Amino acid sequence: MSLTITKVVARDARFPLGPGAGSDAVHLDAVYSYAVCELYTDGEEKGSGLAFTVGAGNELVCQAIEFLAQELVGKEIDELMADFGEFQRKLSNHTQFRWIGPHKGVVQLALGAITNACFDLWAKKKAVPLWKLLLDLSTEETIQLLDFSYVEDVLSKEEARVILNSHVIDRHKRENVLTDNYQGYDTSIGWFNYSDQKVRDNIKKSMAAGFTSMKLKVGSPDHERDLRRAYMVRECAGDAATVMLDCNQQWQLQESIEFMMKAKDMNPYWIEEPTHPDDILGHQTLARAISPVKVACGEHVPNRVIFKNYLQSNAMHFNQVDAVRVGGISEFILISLMSRKFNIPVVPHVGDMGQIHQHLVLFNHIAMGHEALFLEHIPHLQEHFVHPCQIVDGRYITPQEIGASSDLKCLQADNIRVAI
Amino acid sequence: MSLTITKVVARDARFPLGPGAGSDAVHLDAVYSYAVCELYTDGEEKGSGLAFTVGAGNELVCQAIEFLAQELVGKEIDELMADFGEFQRKLSNHTQFRWIGPHKGVVQLALGAITNACFDLWAKKKAVPLWKLLLDLSTEETIQLLDFSYVEDVLSKEEARVILNSHVIDRHKRENVLTDNYQGYDTSIGWFNYSDQKVRDNIKKSMAAGFTSMKLKVGSPDHERDLRRAYMVRECAGDAATVMLDCNQQWQLQESIEFMMKAKDMNPYWIEEPTHPDDILGHQTLARAISPVKVACGEHVPNRVIFKNYLQSNAMHFNQVDAVRVGGISEFILISLMSRKFNIPVVPHVGDMGQIHQHLVLFNHIAMGHEALFLEHIPHLQEHFVHPCQIVDGRYITPQEIGASSDLKCLQADNIRVAI
Repeated sequence: MSLTITKVVARDARFPLGPGAGSDAVHLDAVYSYAVCELYTDGEEKGSGLAFTVGAGNELVCQAIEFLAQELVGKEIDELMADFGEFQRKLSNHTQFRWIGPHKGVVQLALGAITNACFDLWAKKKAVPLWKLLLDLSTEETIQLLDFSYVEDVLSKEEARVILNSHVIDRHKRENVLTDNYQGYDTSIGWFNYSDQKVRDNIKKSMAAGFTSMKLKVGSPDHERDLRRAYMVRECAGDAATVMLDCNQQWQLQESIEFMMKAKDMNPYWIEEPTHPDDILGHQTLARAISPVKVACGEHVPNRVIFKNYLQSNAMHFNQVDAVRVGGISEFILISLMSRKFNIPVVPHVGDMGQIHQHLVLFNHIAMGHEALFLEHIPHLQEHFVHPCQIVDGRYITPQEIGASSDLKCLQADNIRVAI
Repeated sequence: MSLTITKVVARDARFPLGPGAGSDAVHLDAVYSYAVCELYTDGEEKGSGLAFTVGAGNELVCQAIEFLAQELVGKEIDELMADFGEFQRKLSNHTQFRWIGPHKGVVQLALGAITNACFDLWAKKKAVPLWKLLLDLSTEETIQLLDFSYVEDVLSKEEARVILNSHVIDRHKRENVLTDNYQGYDTSIGWFNYSDQKVRDNIKKSMAAGFTSMKLKVGSPDHERDLRRAYMVRECAGDAATVMLDCNQQWQLQESIEFMMKAKDMNPYWIEEPTHPDDILGHQTLARAISPVKVACGEHVPNRVIFKNYLQSNAMHFNQVDAVRVGGISEFILISLMSRKFNIPVVPHVGDMGQIHQHLVLFNHIAMGHEALFLEHIPHLQEHFVHPCQIVDGRYITPQEIGASSDLKCLQADNIRVAI
């Protein structure tokens, strides 16, 4: 049975948060927002794909989606996905639109939303959750989803095949994660604008809810404030807890080294986005200087080429690629394969609030042997999803609903601000 | 006398070109377009700033300009420029808008147009050409224009001061360039879609017009076609001519090495944009592999942080920073200072058709001792500027009109498509 895309609509969905929630050193007043690509079809199913922003400019991503996605109209979804890597290569290299990226910023966010909508629609047609769709693909079908251009010097198609094939034999062992569920970590204990008292209260609530890993936002011009809070979190959470620090790009390189020298005794699991996300060699320098403290980054790295350079430079210990920042699920998988080659764990940033990524980490673990570490959890938008992720005892319950878990309630009911 | 900005308007100006003109391996159907930032004031003067695109998406840059530039309304131009580096730092780090960059793509193009409009207005207020405005600044006034954040590990303010101050004493010698005029090179002999015969005819015309340096577009899937044309250009132009090849990002890394091994006997002066502009380490590998052929890139490098990594990696021999791609004239100057430290010549890409860059290369040469090499020349939009650059005997005649030479006729007459 065929399912053909008949219309593309982009929707601008913005969700103001509670006081202080979502704040970090750089994004002080985040309004969590999605540029949503909706694919209407000649059947019952509708595909939904997300790109994430923090408010202003979300409308530009929506316009870019509507422009780029016209190529999808008239395409049958199974046929499209059978050669999606080549389709995406062409789409991302539009002879005029490419100039205003290339492969970064607004145009790349749009590509991500479009790609994610295609995967959601594909899973819905097959009537399976996204993780199952991906796990059921043959190695060759997976390879056909990916655009290897500009990274083949580091990961050829043949190397990608070998990674996938070599993990088939012991897959069944790793499938335990489907019933054990995937561990989460809690980002919402320590937003930048939260008071010390609120952070302490949140830690207690978080640990009572089963979390053993959590994150504090740092990057204040007042280093003493950040240090005090970092040690406070350690004291409050106890020595057994995993505590990460996140600077959201605020520091200069030297400043980040100096800070981490002072913070290392609270035993941070990683420092996240210590400086500008384009500064690959800066991260390399930092990673050497603050060892054994580890460096995590990737949420603002827009494409596979820059990830390639990060991995080649030993400039990241944890790869935080986000499928709603790069060109969507397919580029996420390609970057995960590259990262696997370099033995760098993928611990996604969840611009999608973990809705899509809960599927992707299962795939990464089972199909390519990525360590099942933990997945970021941010609850603030949970109520807005048709099938919100379920966290029990600090673990993501493996989703059983069909699709990529990215349908928003508001777009069904039209009861919130949607600009387009 | 004060001059205060009262209103900001963004205009979408697009100029279809003649058959084949502007075509390259990636941008096959370029429509040369400007997202123009216009600053209206309480005086007679109006500032004009350009960002360049090749058509689709130009409207997104215009919208980003209108959003970001609201911060300018009410600002007095001299006061604004007295501390422009700090103003630009804040503007480029808008707490929400930053997310959809940061410092790249649509938001960075918008920042460039806004910045360029400020400099144009400032020069108009002082009633001098941009090059003279810049040369008349003290070292400290120049430093205050620049945002050093994220690059101070490689270029501190103090190092920038030293570069500028150390070039004061012999400035008068280099000021000869103002009367000698700055050499141009001709990009328009060999657009990708031009036939062999047209390329040969163009070379003859170009050399008759006084050019001794020219560029051929390569990057075809048919390497034999490119090689044949490269050797043809050499034969037609003669051994004394300077011939550059430009791939516009089309090649994979291995492919670029293989091609350049075959092309090196036609003695190319450089290979430009051999592969993806984000692939710093790829350019480093290539630069080593094809030596003594040199690598030029930068027209798609969006900010100082990535240029910093390129320079640190010895991955470019010629720095082609474009003031209508990065965050405008001030970031161009900062990147030029970094490049000077590394002794890498700045040979700008001219998204502005050389209108603004004819001023900037004079400043780079006189104020910081950058070699006066040559500046790209593309004539296709010349008729559309109020004060088009003048090329005589293959040299840019030093402009004497006030401002940054970026006023477009059409925006005065409203006689072409302007969407906003």
